[in-house]
Formats: sequence, C-alpha cells, structure tokens
Amino acid sequence: MEKYKAVIIGSGIAGMTSAIYLKRGGIEPLIIEKSAPGGTLNLIPSIENYPGYEKISGPDLAMNIYNQINNLDIKIIFKNIDNINLDKKIINDNIEYEYLIIATGRKSRLLGLKDEEKLLGKGISTCALCDGFFYKDKKVVVVGGGNSALTEAIYLSSICKEVTIVHRRNNFTGEKYLIDTVINTKNIKVLYNSKITNYNIKENKLISVTINDKKKIKVDGVFLAIGSTPNSEYFNVKKENDYILVDENYMTSKDNVYAIGDVIKKEYYQLITASNDGIVAASNIINKIK
Amino acid sequence: MEKYKAVIIGSGIAGMTSAIYLKRGGIEPLIIEKSAPGGTLNLIPSIENYPGYEKISGPDLAMNIYNQINNLDIKIIFKNIDNINLDKKIINDNIEYEYLIIATGRKSRLLGLKDEEKLLGKGISTCALCDGFFYKDKKVVVVGGGNSALTEAIYLSSICKEVTIVHRRNNFTGEKYLIDTVINTKNIKVLYNSKITNYNIKENKLISVTINDKKKIKVDGVFLAIGSTPNSEYFNVKKENDYILVDENYMTSKDNVYAIGDVIKKEYYQLITASNDGIVAASNIINKIK
Repeated sequence: MEKYKAVIIGSGIAGMTSAIYLKRGGIEPLIIEKSAPGGTLNLIPSIENYPGYEKISGPDLAMNIYNQINNLDIKIIFKNIDNINLDKKIINDNIEYEYLIIATGRKSRLLGLKDEEKLLGKGISTCALCDGFFYKDKKVVVVGGGNSALTEAIYLSSICKEVTIVHRRNNFTGEKYLIDTVINTKNIKVLYNSKITNYNIKENKLISVTINDKKKIKVDGVFLAIGSTPNSEYFNVKKENDYILVDENYMTSKDNVYAIGDVIKKEYYQLITASNDGIVAASNIINKIK
Repeated sequence: MEKYKAVIIGSGIAGMTSAIYLKRGGIEPLIIEKSAPGGTLNLIPSIENYPGYEKISGPDLAMNIYNQINNLDIKIIFKNIDNINLDKKIINDNIEYEYLIIATGRKSRLLGLKDEEKLLGKGISTCALCDGFFYKDKKVVVVGGGNSALTEAIYLSSICKEVTIVHRRNNFTGEKYLIDTVINTKNIKVLYNSKITNYNIKENKLISVTINDKKKIKVDGVFLAIGSTPNSEYFNVKKENDYILVDENYMTSKDNVYAIGDVIKKEYYQLITASNDGIVAASNIINKIK
C-alpha cells in the first residue's frame, strides 16, 4: 500500500494549482490523471482572458503549468480510477490517502452531429463567458432553453450583432426574469420547436447551420448550452444534479474529502475560479495538517 | 460630467481582471489608478506559484496584464481619488458611475528600519504563503505575535529548517490552538520581549538581524506579520478592522458598490484569489445590467 498525505484526482488547472500550493506548503501530494495533464485546457484552442497572457492556447498553458509541477518534483501517475473507498480512504486497492481532492472536471454535452468535435473551439463553443468575445459583432446561435442558454444568450447579445436561440421545445424552462429579458432584447431571436440537424462547413469554417433538416441560417458561431456532465460518478458525496456540493473551504459532505474546479456546483466556471478553488482547498488542508 | 457604466479604482490584478471581464462582456469600464498599473505586483521580485509561469517577476506579470487591457482598448486614467460620493455616485466631482469596483489593495506594515524597503522580496517578505518556498531548508524569522504571525510560523515550519518568532510582548495574542501548535513544533523557537533593531547586510544580502540592540541571530529571511492596512479610507461602507466586508458576489454594504482583492476581508490573499474576485464581481455586474 502506498501512502500519501494528499491525493488529487485530475490534473486540470484546479488540480495542478492545489498540488503546487500543497507542495510549496510542505505536503507531498500525488496527482492521479487518466489522460494528459491539463484536463479541459487541452480542448481550448485560444485563451485571451487569462491574466498574464494576451493569447495562449489551452494545451500551451497546460504544459506551462505541468512544467511547474515537474520543477517542484510533484508525483503524477497516469491511470484510471478503478475503484475508490471514501470510508477506508483507499484508491484502486493500493493507494492510501489522508486528504482527497476531487478535481475531475466536467464534460459539456454535445448534439452528436457530424464535425461537431472538430469544430469545438473553432466555431462551436460550450462557454459564452470564455469565448463570446471571439464573436464580437458577429452572428451566433445559442442552443438550449434552460437558464444557462438564456443567460448565455443575454450575455452574448451585448457583444454579438445577432443572437438566435435554437430551442427544441415550444417554451423555455428557465426563470421568468431571464425569459422576459430574452424576449425584450432586440438582437435576440428565438426559434422554437427547432433543432440543428447539420453544421455546414466551407474551407474548414462553420458558415451556417441547418434547422430541422430544412432551412439554413448563416452563423459565425454556435454556443451549446444543453448542459454539462460533471465527472462525479465515482464519488459518494452530496451532489446536486451530479455537481458535488462543497462548503466555503471546498470540503464535500465527507470529512477531509475536497472537491474543486468544474466538478463542483458554483456560479462561474472559469480557469481562474478553478485555480482559486485549488488554492483555498490546499491552504485549508495545510492548516488542518499542522 | 463623464459617465461610465462601471468604474474600477485600482489596477492591481483584481482590478485589471474585472476590467477584462467587463469589457469582454460588452460593458465599457474606466480604471482609475494613482500610480503604475499592477498595484502590489510591482513590489514582488519573483513569483513561482502563479499557474502558467514557472517564474516571472511581478512587474513583468503586471505589464503582461496591462497589455491585455490596452489590446482591449480599456480606458485607464492615472490620477488620485480626491473625493468620492457613494450616494451621488460621483468621483472627483467629474466622473459619474453606475457600478463601482473598489480594488485598492492594502499596504503591509513594516518595522521602519534602515534598508527594509530595499530588502522587500529579497530577504524580507510580508507573505509566507507567497514566498515561504524560497526559504526551503533555511533559517527564517517571523515578526509578530497575533494569529497571522503564528499561522505563518506554523506554515513555514514545514518548509524551513528553523523558524524563530520575534515578538515584542511576553505572550501571544493569537488563538490558543495556534499558540499550542507553535510551542509544540520542534523547529519553531520563540523570542519574547524582543524586537529586531537592525538588519545586517553583507554583499547586498541579509545575513542576520540584531535583537534588542544586543545579540545577532543569523537568518536567511524575515517574514513580517505585524499587520496590513487596507486602502479603504475613502469608502464609507461596512468594514472590519478597515477591511471591506462583501457578500458572495463581492458587493459591499452599499448597493452596486463592489470590492475585490486585498482590500476586502477574506481568508487567502493571493494573486489568483484576487483575480477570482474580479471575475465574480464583473460577471455579477454584467448579469445585473442585462
């Protein structure tokens, strides 16, 4: 059995930040990552709202942070979580921890259409607050009908020339206040009972979407706001819609089990907010260990 | 009268991040800065715990963020705040705002000894969580006797070889739990009824401190934990020990007046946590304006 003071599951910016703070604070952490270091960062072609970089690709930022991890001699192993016992504090039957930090992120839901994954970050986005500015004065579509779709459409309406909400039902499921704002905003149009059935590409660029297999509408970008799935299934702690609930120190309902970044329920899912979670959780663990 | 949707006072990382998010969200902010862009960043010689940079100087990071501000055509004016009326929402009698963000930071208290300012960041630090790691396996002194001095000493004890607390009184004013931990930690020594009376330098490097004008003790670094003064005197909002109190959206006791970064009361004063505050406040303002 290998024993660690602190184990971090996931090496996105949240997990890596917590590791940096733990290590610098005198605690040796172990990071367990199932694929490449960086998590969601690896899916972001261009970032312009991260303080310190005018423009950087997600994979480059991930690599810079990963270099910090390596410089600090932080141990990282690349393997899947096969099983975890939060009562016995054992992962995969051979790793024992005192403190656990869950930093497993979330997956955005996609429509499952042809070319969708290829266009992610290059015409298709799952985060208006991150990518809206790339579509300044352009035409965009928002897909969805809940609070997040309405909020994203309102946010985009002050940046983009025209926002079209494509919603599969004949009414919205979001809050009345948001619905009223959407309806009263001049440059937001709504297509009810509609769904995108094809992405139309010319010279590797999204130029239009087909609605209900019939009409095409010209767009520069599509924002998918049809929900996300937090990667929380392995963890038997309190959740809301699968998002892990945490207190002000980012501790879950289970003692000494923390959760940070996109896997938790919170208001704004940004790189810096994820990094912030990592600092607070790590500092709290350091204070508790002493 | 010049009118702005949002005015940000202070251009440290908190203020600049909030400006980036406001502008990208379709709101034109004005930043008012009294000296150079960057705030406290300009006092930090080397940063190694900011995700994305293995090592960067504070002024360089400040300049990178300032370049983002300029690329986004965010207006910044360099002048002092002579007066501000939070009821009329007017600054210096000629700038009117709808939303105000206070990002004025804080000043760390110093002992006022010769060479102290020169040694800041190069032998003398005011933040163990930021700089502790630079003194790995070395000998340090912590000055102070309250909770923050005790917490810093405990934090440093797991990184440094030896920590000596220099305290001017004959007992600590911090929490009993912290006092007990300090007393029970082997590599923490305490000098009561003591104060540093001189910094002794050799070849531009701090080599020892003189205690009570008598004995010298060898040190590699000194951490001052004798308090900080938030730059909050102009703002008539609710405070605790001069730190501005904010809610979960970083709004102060005054409607539509926000405060972010080191000027507010919170647990961890880090670059990323300040930046996080800026994102949440800006995003909240954007949501409210719509």
